[in-house]
Amino acid sequence: MDAVQKADSGHPGTPMALAPLAYVLWTRHLRYDPADPNWLNRDRFVLSAGHASMLIYSVLYLTGYDLSLDDLKQFRQWESKTPGHPEYGYTPGVETTTGPLGQGVGNSVGMAVGEAHMAAVFNRDQKIFDHYTYFIASDGDMMEGVSHEAASFAGHAKLGKLIGFYDDNHITIEGDTALTFSDDTGARFEAYGWHIQHVADANDLDALDRATQAAKAETSRPSLIVVRSHIGYGSPNKHDTAEAHGSPLGQDEITLTKKALGYPSEEPFYVAPEALKYWRDTAKKRAKAHDDWNRVYDAYKQANPGLEKELQRRLAGDLPDGWEDALPTFTAKDGNVASRAASGVVINAIGKKIPELMGGSADLASSTNTIIKGEPSFSAENYAGRNFHFGIREHGMGSIMNGMSLSGGIIPYGATFLIFSDYMRPPVRLASIMDRHVIYVYTHDSIGLGEDGPTHQPVEQLPSLRAIPGLVVLRPGDANEVVEAWKVVMQLKNEPAALVLSRQNLPTLDRTKYASASGVAKGAYILADAEDSKPEVILMATGSELYLCVNAYEDLKKQGIKARVVSMPSWDIFEHQDEAYRRKVLPPEIKARVSVEQASTFGWSQYVRPTGVIIGMHTFGASAPLKELQKKFGFSPDKIVEAAREAISRSKGK
Amino acid sequence: MDAVQKADSGHPGTPMALAPLAYVLWTRHLRYDPADPNWLNRDRFVLSAGHASMLIYSVLYLTGYDLSLDDLKQFRQWESKTPGHPEYGYTPGVETTTGPLGQGVGNSVGMAVGEAHMAAVFNRDQKIFDHYTYFIASDGDMMEGVSHEAASFAGHAKLGKLIGFYDDNHITIEGDTALTFSDDTGARFEAYGWHIQHVADANDLDALDRATQAAKAETSRPSLIVVRSHIGYGSPNKHDTAEAHGSPLGQDEITLTKKALGYPSEEPFYVAPEALKYWRDTAKKRAKAHDDWNRVYDAYKQANPGLEKELQRRLAGDLPDGWEDALPTFTAKDGNVASRAASGVVINAIGKKIPELMGGSADLASSTNTIIKGEPSFSAENYAGRNFHFGIREHGMGSIMNGMSLSGGIIPYGATFLIFSDYMRPPVRLASIMDRHVIYVYTHDSIGLGEDGPTHQPVEQLPSLRAIPGLVVLRPGDANEVVEAWKVVMQLKNEPAALVLSRQNLPTLDRTKYASASGVAKGAYILADAEDSKPEVILMATGSELYLCVNAYEDLKKQGIKARVVSMPSWDIFEHQDEAYRRKVLPPEIKARVSVEQASTFGWSQYVRPTGVIIGMHTFGASAPLKELQKKFGFSPDKIVEAAREAISRSKGK
Repeated sequence: MDAVQKADSGHPGTPMALAPLAYVLWTRHLRYDPADPNWLNRDRFVLSAGHASMLIYSVLYLTGYDLSLDDLKQFRQWESKTPGHPEYGYTPGVETTTGPLGQGVGNSVGMAVGEAHMAAVFNRDQKIFDHYTYFIASDGDMMEGVSHEAASFAGHAKLGKLIGFYDDNHITIEGDTALTFSDDTGARFEAYGWHIQHVADANDLDALDRATQAAKAETSRPSLIVVRSHIGYGSPNKHDTAEAHGSPLGQDEITLTKKALGYPSEEPFYVAPEALKYWRDTAKKRAKAHDDWNRVYDAYKQANPGLEKELQRRLAGDLPDGWEDALPTFTAKDGNVASRAASGVVINAIGKKIPELMGGSADLASSTNTIIKGEPSFSAENYAGRNFHFGIREHGMGSIMNGMSLSGGIIPYGATFLIFSDYMRPPVRLASIMDRHVIYVYTHDSIGLGEDGPTHQPVEQLPSLRAIPGLVVLRPGDANEVVEAWKVVMQLKNEPAALVLSRQNLPTLDRTKYASASGVAKGAYILADAEDSKPEVILMATGSELYLCVNAYEDLKKQGIKARVVSMPSWDIFEHQDEAYRRKVLPPEIKARVSVEQASTFGWSQYVRPTGVIIGMHTFGASAPLKELQKKFGFSPDKIVEAAREAISRSKGK
Repeated sequence: MDAVQKADSGHPGTPMALAPLAYVLWTRHLRYDPADPNWLNRDRFVLSAGHASMLIYSVLYLTGYDLSLDDLKQFRQWESKTPGHPEYGYTPGVETTTGPLGQGVGNSVGMAVGEAHMAAVFNRDQKIFDHYTYFIASDGDMMEGVSHEAASFAGHAKLGKLIGFYDDNHITIEGDTALTFSDDTGARFEAYGWHIQHVADANDLDALDRATQAAKAETSRPSLIVVRSHIGYGSPNKHDTAEAHGSPLGQDEITLTKKALGYPSEEPFYVAPEALKYWRDTAKKRAKAHDDWNRVYDAYKQANPGLEKELQRRLAGDLPDGWEDALPTFTAKDGNVASRAASGVVINAIGKKIPELMGGSADLASSTNTIIKGEPSFSAENYAGRNFHFGIREHGMGSIMNGMSLSGGIIPYGATFLIFSDYMRPPVRLASIMDRHVIYVYTHDSIGLGEDGPTHQPVEQLPSLRAIPGLVVLRPGDANEVVEAWKVVMQLKNEPAALVLSRQNLPTLDRTKYASASGVAKGAYILADAEDSKPEVILMATGSELYLCVNAYEDLKKQGIKARVVSMPSWDIFEHQDEAYRRKVLPPEIKARVSVEQASTFGWSQYVRPTGVIIGMHTFGASAPLKELQKKFGFSPDKIVEAAREAISRSKGK
């Protein structure tokens, strides 16, 4: 109450309602060590209802994490350790960034996946991985579709060490949940295969304790505990009202609340010394589990020195030595290869060397080429499996991937058609906010997919992904660019990356004739040039349109026009190069430019304006065979040649 | 089979499996009239599993819609009436564009909402609105989160005339659904308050018939009928396999299948004359319901001439005469007004005159200012209500809105924070593909929302919306621009629009001093200019940054620098103006330009490059009060003045 009041902004009601639950969890159940928030085998706790951030900040302070009362007073201020919603990396003990509803549920599922997998792979006589993942979800989390996707996956995978609490407070921002919500949430989760319990009174410590105990004992299914709570509990005038949700209570009401609760002081931020002592002492006692585990770990290390070293490598995010040796090379003799197919070859090649690379697709494995052959599937029967069947659940996939990544030692990849990146933007954004190394494989990346038509043909998805700060977007132009793109992507540590790949076959460019694909690492590079390096016009393309530019370049050459082809698989990587390199590739004095991309033209003006020509999509696509579409929408070497002449004449006209 | 084979692309398995269901529905239950596919009171049928498009195309041909066998032979070809997935507007009898999974379920809910609402408002002694909405959903639809959101809403709203069939075929692209899916879907929908039935054999015509009968009889709850089917039924070698899902069966297998089914001919596209006759005759008989309804409608018209005229106005998409008179005007005396608040004033003013304007928010009514005061809420108890409580279900909201719009006579609006537009991009895109006049009210549109932090601060959302072809995006800069923006948006007929609004207060610009806000209708306009109209620099902004540019303009004036301020609330509307106007507002010879927007800079180069300065966001935001954020991220008149000087010097340097 006090922190929200001081910030004059925030959500007091849920922290007040769930204080008893937090008390029961942190003093009786969670295994944690405030002195080592990153202890490998800590229980994970996710506040999916991220707006209730003051709940976790309070508990982290009380239990003795590196978070002071002064930090709490800085709630929601610039660079404080207590931002408005919990943000991963800002506060010790915060396991993931939450706030966008439903994401925490998905993250929790991903963390439980991580625990199950790492336990299956690394545990020996010593169970070094053996922890629970807890989450608290609000009505909002439960209404959001991503909670359906993630919970359905968790039920199927029988993630028995996942325990959720549903804060059933009957209140949302617009008023009583009965305005729009009459799900029987318990029954819904039962339909997913979860174990369900109900606690009728959020203040009943023993009932909360018993239910948590039972949930821990039930290890063959994930558990959901439905807790009937009262938002703003203790506030005489705002309890059980939407007003208590997202605004400060007001100083008067805070005073009344403290009186009503019999709180010993009205002083803001007052914590009774004996209460603080009790919390701190209890936290210390609970941290003994860490000492015990240290002994287990030492024994493990002694018994399995190689394995332990391998584990530490994975946790550090270092790739195995020599992994690049596995990367394939394609030659022009390989003929036409879809970039999704080349990607499948790379995944299989490096997948054998990099065991932490694991993932799958949202039910499009055969189309996205994302199966690691010979490896088992991740399933309730085999958590060691690395091939994931995420189901037709793109949003859940993205959210689960974030949890897998946060869990540690895993580089998750997830695939779907590029068009369906729209279904999963919230977790992609969060991966970028949290600096997670996760990989999206987006295939069928343009009208090039043909007959499935406009509902399946991406147009605006590419610019929309490029606009996400920190997301590395790569659209390689032939098989060797795919190899280089994977090389770039694997070496990232703190960025998510999206590989954007074609459905259709693409010529494998003759690298003895054109520049090496290693230029991909710089985001853009000169693929073909005028003989004296003084081109009249620059042709730029990404992905499946690159060969069209190469063909146009050859045609222009025959016509005596000096062109340069710049392959631009990644704008953002290119923008991170030094100015000298950028000016070398795209000299400002060469104003005649043509860009070609089978996507919305949005954003290309940055490289092409004011005198260039942007060849791209201005409408949605259509259902027809690719060749027909390319003709109708104007993607061909002839059109590029024409545009090049136009750009040259425009640039001279200026 | 034949059409998919001829196209060498498509999905034969589900149409084969569900032919009996289609037969039962079209010959025994659906009310439709092939001669008038837009008959007002027809039953709506939505193939949410849009990949099975050949199912509906076949039936539309058989029942005698304006779709020939030759059209079926043009499956998936350029400009054919039989595109890869059903596309609204291309094929008579196709009610909505489906394919992206889950959307059809949401559209169906919206259509059932539309029927319930129009019946409540318009029916008198004569029930002119009285139809069912049917949908077929696949495993994919059921796995997608949007089906959860929409079904939960439908259960709450007790939409008793909504009947869904779940094609429970146990097969997805990756193989058996058991790979990743073990929901008890019936139990799940029961938890939403739906009426559930099971049909054990998709070929049992009588069972399908009985279940449909019972679903129609149950009018207090939506119904789901779980139909155990066999994908590729009849195919000796591909039935019950993932192979039958998304590829042609192959000519040999088609021959085998026809033999196995005892089909009378192996000739492709053969339809037995007696079968065709039976379908056509039956369709004619069923169309008698239309004749009956015509008599009801005539009686209605006679008894309620005014109401009938009003109905026809709404169905034609014409706004009521004089609706603009309700539009408010703000003056500088109104002081600081958040654009979301101004929008709330407008909604309430025009809402009283335009009864077809209806909607609500994804549980943010008080924050998005989207309640029409004095109007009841849409609920199971009152379907005439116009205030919608969509719940924390943005994706469902967008999908339901599309259905409401398709239902006819309704202009739906839906509100949430701009950041959560990410949760609902698939239906926004479909609204644009389908040319639907729906309105998105997106508030809290930048770091300007302050303390809630980066998870809630949009950065890339604005460019990502601008990149959607056909979506009209408007970000008005003060209260009067909000009025004009709503005026523009209401007058659209075939486009969806997104209003992007501030949380924070904004000065109401003095329009006696600066140009009228009516320029909003042109997308961009000169708000303030150099006295001789020959500015040295152009300052461009949208929304909440407009007043910063006005302040900078005044400062520059004092410093003797001649500036122009261009307000650019809508890029796409501006791009649709003639070249003369565009050159007048942004003369190419004025190269010193500054753009200011508290969003990703992505796309601004189109107006600012190469010598201008783009002031915007390059990272995610942060949790802190707005003033602090503006200081840290560099949004202030001083910074704009500095940038203007820089732009002027750069443009001279060239």
